[in-house]
Amino acid sequence: MAGDRVDQLLSRLEPVDEESRGAALDRWSTRAKPKGGLGRLETLGAHMAAIRRTPRPAFHRKSIAVFAADHGITEEGISSSPRSLTLATVQNILRGTAAISVLSRLEGADLSVVDVGIDGPPLAPRPGLFPRKIARGTQNFAQAPAMNHHEARESVRAGIDVMETLLNYGADLVALGDVGVGNTTSASAMVAVLARRRPEDVVGPGSGLTPERVAHKAMVVASALERHSPAREDPWEVLTTLGGFEIGALSGASLMAASRHVPVIVDGFIGATAVLWAAQLSPFVREYLVASHVASEPGHAVAMEALGLMPYFNFDLQIGEGAGAALQLGLCDAASRLLSEMAAENAPSPAVEGPWPR
Amino acid sequence: MAGDRVDQLLSRLEPVDEESRGAALDRWSTRAKPKGGLGRLETLGAHMAAIRRTPRPAFHRKSIAVFAADHGITEEGISSSPRSLTLATVQNILRGTAAISVLSRLEGADLSVVDVGIDGPPLAPRPGLFPRKIARGTQNFAQAPAMNHHEARESVRAGIDVMETLLNYGADLVALGDVGVGNTTSASAMVAVLARRRPEDVVGPGSGLTPERVAHKAMVVASALERHSPAREDPWEVLTTLGGFEIGALSGASLMAASRHVPVIVDGFIGATAVLWAAQLSPFVREYLVASHVASEPGHAVAMEALGLMPYFNFDLQIGEGAGAALQLGLCDAASRLLSEMAAENAPSPAVEGPWPR
Repeated sequence: MAGDRVDQLLSRLEPVDEESRGAALDRWSTRAKPKGGLGRLETLGAHMAAIRRTPRPAFHRKSIAVFAADHGITEEGISSSPRSLTLATVQNILRGTAAISVLSRLEGADLSVVDVGIDGPPLAPRPGLFPRKIARGTQNFAQAPAMNHHEARESVRAGIDVMETLLNYGADLVALGDVGVGNTTSASAMVAVLARRRPEDVVGPGSGLTPERVAHKAMVVASALERHSPAREDPWEVLTTLGGFEIGALSGASLMAASRHVPVIVDGFIGATAVLWAAQLSPFVREYLVASHVASEPGHAVAMEALGLMPYFNFDLQIGEGAGAALQLGLCDAASRLLSEMAAENAPSPAVEGPWPR
Repeated sequence: MAGDRVDQLLSRLEPVDEESRGAALDRWSTRAKPKGGLGRLETLGAHMAAIRRTPRPAFHRKSIAVFAADHGITEEGISSSPRSLTLATVQNILRGTAAISVLSRLEGADLSVVDVGIDGPPLAPRPGLFPRKIARGTQNFAQAPAMNHHEARESVRAGIDVMETLLNYGADLVALGDVGVGNTTSASAMVAVLARRRPEDVVGPGSGLTPERVAHKAMVVASALERHSPAREDPWEVLTTLGGFEIGALSGASLMAASRHVPVIVDGFIGATAVLWAAQLSPFVREYLVASHVASEPGHAVAMEALGLMPYFNFDLQIGEGAGAALQLGLCDAASRLLSEMAAENAPSPAVEGPWPR
């Protein structure tokens, strides 16, 4: 069912380089510090080495890509936010006043927004906006498949194409974000299938549902799973029946980045769902992923466990947009620079130029 | 017992500005995001507002100050590292190849090293080095008081003076670090007194002691507490009998920064001990402190609890130098910028200039 472009990409994916990981771990053990003294930053640095295929990784262009789309399932009253908030948030991002805009400036990262299915007319062209609208939102998957097979493929291709552009432009460390009112319902349904869990184990309050409405949301998911009953072994059917355009695009973007040996930082529940889905197409993608924050949706922990990923921090973020992933950019950079730039214990490197010791 | 300079400083300390904190919390509630959606970053941003006395805090010069000194208690075999490692680490910092050097470059922070008592001749002058050597290490507090009363005052004054220089130079966000082989033993003894805990509740493995040697270290601390039995209510006696020159200096530095309404990011166990001691001189200092990482020494949790501070992340760092505090610089900056730069929900700010949305 996958189109040629997707198949070609999948055939190019390969494992990360364990030799570079080993060399990085050896390098850590000879740096001027207590053994293991940099804790998880040592594991992270070695992971970056394995992905970049060098014992001394260095990043030159950080890039944040935010994928936005609307969801037909909002007709079922599963969100506390109006559907129009998807577009409003994207406009804030383009204006430079959203949380992710502030964080991208702070991290020195490029920020791109991809319209893969916002409900509304095409957005006026402007730098940083990639127009790939597939439809004005998905169908209501309580009533019908969320999308058709062509749209599912198109959503994954949109992610592949945009990520390819960013990589060609020079991005070598990528953080993924999402905007889409209703998307935690879609993600819950997908994770329930992909991780073989009951709806009530993965459904949460999204951006602020009451417990009663969370129960309603779980019922909507349970009923949709019964209606469509996609097989876990047929990922395209899972995406088609239950997915979202931004979820397909996030999957495509992560596959493309992995194929080019670029680390992919996953944000919250939506991103975790997308990469869990992508891992059904190619298990290798998992090795290129970096978790960021602990998201509050219960399905996030389920997806993290299924992927074998462990988040780095927990600030109770409930904002989406890729905010947690953006904060993790700095940690990936820090781990890599520490690995590359610290002196050996008994053979100090030559002094760094400059009048001040930084 | 405190000298004039210290007393004058203490008289200038005042509470943070609760009006600015309230205005910041109001501001958060109208930003374009789910209510509370930035989690602990909202609390942190409001804390920065209260310290800086403005609802829209902004930082212009981040500064890391590392205080280094040796400890006579190393004669008791309480450290897995040779005493010479204090000087070697400081040389790595000045060379730009220590962990904290790498992190200061990454965070765009100034980095200063203060010699308050390294065992060795004075270091050759160079930019970023502040020479305030009080002695070539403290006395062995298993046998005698760690320092005399004059030295205790001098150590606190050294921290005050250096921090004043950094603040006059423009620093408005400060991270404190420490280097000193043997200093977890001194800190353990001080925290046991200041938080009224038994030595075995606060003593840990430092940079890698075996369980047997941790038990020996706890015995050394217990025996020293019995010998000196300083009263918790007499903080100068606690510092004199059990302290370290860098611990006194860290205390002075935090008091000076607080008096100038500058947030003080505390690193691990040594920094926590120093600010717990400083809080005995003035309870107001506590309001200017920001915790960073969870340190593995058990005494760190005890000190955090006594101060009412909660660390932000746990990467299993066991390196000192201020590495955890340096990583927290970015989070304080992020929280403040999000608070200041995000759009209101229904009244978008004017577009930020520039062709790209970051």
